Amino acid sequence: MTKKFYTPGPAQLFPTYAQHLQKAMDEQLGSISHRSKQFRSIFQETTENLRALLNIPAENMIFFTGTATEIWERIIQNCVENESFHCVNGSFSKKFHEFSIELGKKAIKLEVAAGKGFELENINIPDTAELVCLTHNETSFGVMMPENDIHTLKKQHPDKLFVVDMVSSAPYPNLDYTLVDSALFSVQKSFGMPAGLGVWIVNEQCLAKAEKLKAAGQSVGTFQSIPTLWKNAQNFETPATPNVIGIYILGRIAADMLKTGISVIRKETEQKADMLYNYLKTSEHLNIFVEKPEHRSQTVVVANTENPNEILKKLAEKNLIVGSGYGSFKDQQIRIANFPATSIAGTELLLKELKNLESVAV
Amino acid sequence: MTKKFYTPGPAQLFPTYAQHLQKAMDEQLGSISHRSKQFRSIFQETTENLRALLNIPAENMIFFTGTATEIWERIIQNCVENESFHCVNGSFSKKFHEFSIELGKKAIKLEVAAGKGFELENINIPDTAELVCLTHNETSFGVMMPENDIHTLKKQHPDKLFVVDMVSSAPYPNLDYTLVDSALFSVQKSFGMPAGLGVWIVNEQCLAKAEKLKAAGQSVGTFQSIPTLWKNAQNFETPATPNVIGIYILGRIAADMLKTGISVIRKETEQKADMLYNYLKTSEHLNIFVEKPEHRSQTVVVANTENPNEILKKLAEKNLIVGSGYGSFKDQQIRIANFPATSIAGTELLLKELKNLESVAV
Repeated sequence: MTKKFYTPGPAQLFPTYAQHLQKAMDEQLGSISHRSKQFRSIFQETTENLRALLNIPAENMIFFTGTATEIWERIIQNCVENESFHCVNGSFSKKFHEFSIELGKKAIKLEVAAGKGFELENINIPDTAELVCLTHNETSFGVMMPENDIHTLKKQHPDKLFVVDMVSSAPYPNLDYTLVDSALFSVQKSFGMPAGLGVWIVNEQCLAKAEKLKAAGQSVGTFQSIPTLWKNAQNFETPATPNVIGIYILGRIAADMLKTGISVIRKETEQKADMLYNYLKTSEHLNIFVEKPEHRSQTVVVANTENPNEILKKLAEKNLIVGSGYGSFKDQQIRIANFPATSIAGTELLLKELKNLESVAV
Repeated sequence: MTKKFYTPGPAQLFPTYAQHLQKAMDEQLGSISHRSKQFRSIFQETTENLRALLNIPAENMIFFTGTATEIWERIIQNCVENESFHCVNGSFSKKFHEFSIELGKKAIKLEVAAGKGFELENINIPDTAELVCLTHNETSFGVMMPENDIHTLKKQHPDKLFVVDMVSSAPYPNLDYTLVDSALFSVQKSFGMPAGLGVWIVNEQCLAKAEKLKAAGQSVGTFQSIPTLWKNAQNFETPATPNVIGIYILGRIAADMLKTGISVIRKETEQKADMLYNYLKTSEHLNIFVEKPEHRSQTVVVANTENPNEILKKLAEKNLIVGSGYGSFKDQQIRIANFPATSIAGTELLLKELKNLESVAV
């Protein structure tokens, strides 16, 4: 029996994933050289489709890595000499902050409690901070930072580099890449692909910073440094042999999304999120974790409940796989992914089963 | 028309690859959590199969990365405080050496000309070197370092850590992992898989060194440091979301290889290599690049020729894809991969077409 995944990553595969994979196999893309014209065409097409989908200016570069986690490390190595600043409100933004410390930097954080977002007036970025690290969607607790807040903050600090982790929300956030210097995501969330590929968007200011640090003798890494990735990407190549099939399929799924239209995808995401949150408002077993409506994630909906394991078990019996709470919240929360791979009908199906559970003791 | 790839990576897919991929899709492995029991079972089975195949002791750990290239960087970060030593005889061993310099280390090299291997008596490793970096099979020029030479060298320097790059030869080399401290490979060569997964074998001495450096305040990286990878691997997990499907299929192909038997695979590799080299000895158009028989690669056969592009073109017309010479040798060499995915019949087919070309002007 086929399962439906409502997990915040790895997640439900995109409806067209299997057909693109078949095409990749038919065309023997697993065997082609990553220094061939054929690969360069794939790289070009995928990045062009992502550019169109996310409205990324031509001046910015798009790189591929093995994971999004790797990008946290690479951006600190390449864009921080001494000090980074982090808004921390969950396990993933916390890890990003810890990476900076592990790399020997002074990493300043503004930390708020689980389920909380950030109020602009409380964010005091030190003058000495070089890179501001924001998380658009904190996957562990389903808290979102509105795009407008991100943009406003950058306008207040035009001299600092801003990087936005949108691992579990891209392509939903409508970021202004003339303001945001760098952004990152992985493909096993909203793009509905198996894990094994990270995507990193960087602008020329990031490149300039990395080159400056390198010229001053700081190690900015090796094959995955911004200067090396940039040079390769200009030729539609990667420094090392990449996940060629992943890059190909990402390009095809981005094309599918372009066909649907990004505004339709964003509207449907909000519509499905509304359905989920509206249900939680009336549910007797589950209630919304994130208090402030503006901070509620549109792609990862987190609910408090007394008996999460029983709910997850009952849903699994119906082949509906929902995410558990993160870390120590495992025994008091569930997390429902709301990615484009799940249709409105898919959300309705989940809600129907959740409502059925209300009528029986869980 | 289906092509047959004789390219040194990405290469011909393993004959069972498609069926394992189908199984992975049927079981929805692209959507499972990397923190689930199901994933831990996959991790455990794949590492156990690799252990059995390569005769890796239980004390050593096996890690997964995005690429083998990444492992060059990670081992330098984790096992070198000041100085590494490198045997350089081609583009890949050269890059490994350059990575160490880029990471701010003193990287000593013994470099020999293209097509040459190393004579033990000429290898003088400084007392100050902490890590000795050897390349079992230099993919760019098809030069091999015999396992015995590697083992002898380590016995002469028991106090130093030894890492062996076997990117384009594993599982062929019969390394003694009670001597070799670390080894690495990627799956798009001899394991016949699409690119996107690196495999890193490390022992407790590497872990101890990384922990010592870390305790002394050296940055050993973040999520891909040996201590972090080790801790996760003990629980059959990875620090970040890995290429789950790649890890699963690698385990299945290792199981297939175990069924055939590693000694059979090694013997067949040598048999096919003999067929290729014997042909080159008699060919009028092609001749063996690597002079010394002991240094001739068993997995990447490099031949000199006056007209490589014409030969590659003629073979491609028959859907036989052979590798071009590396870098500046593109106009004077071809490279023929001799991986387990190519059967004896597959080698015969290539030889037949190469011989046919002899009778016409190329």
